[in-house]
Amino acid sequence: MKKPRAVLFDAYGTLFDVYSIALLAEQQFPGQGQRMATLWRDKQIEYTRLITTSNHGAHYRPFWELTQAALRYTIKAIEPRARTEWDAGGFEDKHRALMGQYRHLSGFPETRAVLTGLRERGLKTGILSNGDPEMLGISVRSAGLEALLDHVISVEPVRLFKTAPEAYALGPAATGVPASETLFVSSNSWDALAATWFGYQTLWVNRQNAPFEELGVLPHRIGHSLRDVLAYLDAA
Amino acid sequence: MKKPRAVLFDAYGTLFDVYSIALLAEQQFPGQGQRMATLWRDKQIEYTRLITTSNHGAHYRPFWELTQAALRYTIKAIEPRARTEWDAGGFEDKHRALMGQYRHLSGFPETRAVLTGLRERGLKTGILSNGDPEMLGISVRSAGLEALLDHVISVEPVRLFKTAPEAYALGPAATGVPASETLFVSSNSWDALAATWFGYQTLWVNRQNAPFEELGVLPHRIGHSLRDVLAYLDAA
Repeated sequence: MKKPRAVLFDAYGTLFDVYSIALLAEQQFPGQGQRMATLWRDKQIEYTRLITTSNHGAHYRPFWELTQAALRYTIKAIEPRARTEWDAGGFEDKHRALMGQYRHLSGFPETRAVLTGLRERGLKTGILSNGDPEMLGISVRSAGLEALLDHVISVEPVRLFKTAPEAYALGPAATGVPASETLFVSSNSWDALAATWFGYQTLWVNRQNAPFEELGVLPHRIGHSLRDVLAYLDAA
Repeated sequence: MKKPRAVLFDAYGTLFDVYSIALLAEQQFPGQGQRMATLWRDKQIEYTRLITTSNHGAHYRPFWELTQAALRYTIKAIEPRARTEWDAGGFEDKHRALMGQYRHLSGFPETRAVLTGLRERGLKTGILSNGDPEMLGISVRSAGLEALLDHVISVEPVRLFKTAPEAYALGPAATGVPASETLFVSSNSWDALAATWFGYQTLWVNRQNAPFEELGVLPHRIGHSLRDVLAYLDAA
């Protein structure tokens, strides 16, 4: 394989720490914070897939709206009272607070140093995310990463979410670097899998010590933090 | 809406009781049976979606293989030792036993009576399932339902899983009854949602007392067992 000339990152869970959400959820729903954060994340991803597979994407809605819908579902799943007393039970306030937290996620501790390291090595850097442009813009600014990213690519123009090939194709179209010379980095194993199928070089950041998907393909490298991106490049 | 002339059922979880799997899983992995059954089911569905959205279905594999792969993943997720000691740890035996149970699922208690009731009312009956033809045939025979189903429709010919519209289109193509005059019945809320988007009349059998998906569309009816199918038809 050729040495990568560009590195594209998934955003939520990969550059931005979505797990911190569990702390606020725990305050709001004592004893349920971790379960709520997991269910919300799973449902958010499920909604992107339902939209992408149903009627060729005809029901597309921006990721922010799907994230809101997924949180509404999650609150109703965990707290049945919310199904009938959404307003009276104060659930709209909890929903708003959690969405506010989601809008201003922190980067992981190593995020800045790694992006800086890519700059020093002369590589192009970018995000390729299911997020819509507005929420991505806010996330990038909140984490102070604007100056370190050459491209912030949303799937919105194709109105299909990853893992649709039309979504992955936006990366090379924006950077001018073919997928085979681009390292795609994600902490989501399904994202690393599908990016490998698409033709990227791939690094799965296995933050949770999970097994990889059992679908017959492995990413080119498995790491445990974004620092493994630099290790991959220096060895390539 | 016109009175339905045909009824199509999802198979796994709707006609066939997949929840009984948790009992065997609990024997094999004490304290983890319910979690294992849930994770297996979620991963199985996730794999159908990854296959369907990635590279336009180029990586299609039969549902039976995806079910096996999902179980391998689940065992490795719940029992980290299985990642390195699959053979030595006896995990292949547990995997085989659980797959054997999946092959011979029971129908729900009301399944036969409801299908018989549809026959008495002169409606066409069928299954429209992600399952491949061989596993569907075995499931139908194991549950003793052959004589009560006019059509057993697998998505296999289109090599895409539900919720792809190509999969839902197989129903009217087989029965000759348009989707708008067909009642589609599923215990999976995502399936009831996407079938509604596609144009079926829909009944969601909410066996788990879950909230419905928050994507702006509701099924035409929500019930709690297959008996609600007859109630829907008699009121239509």
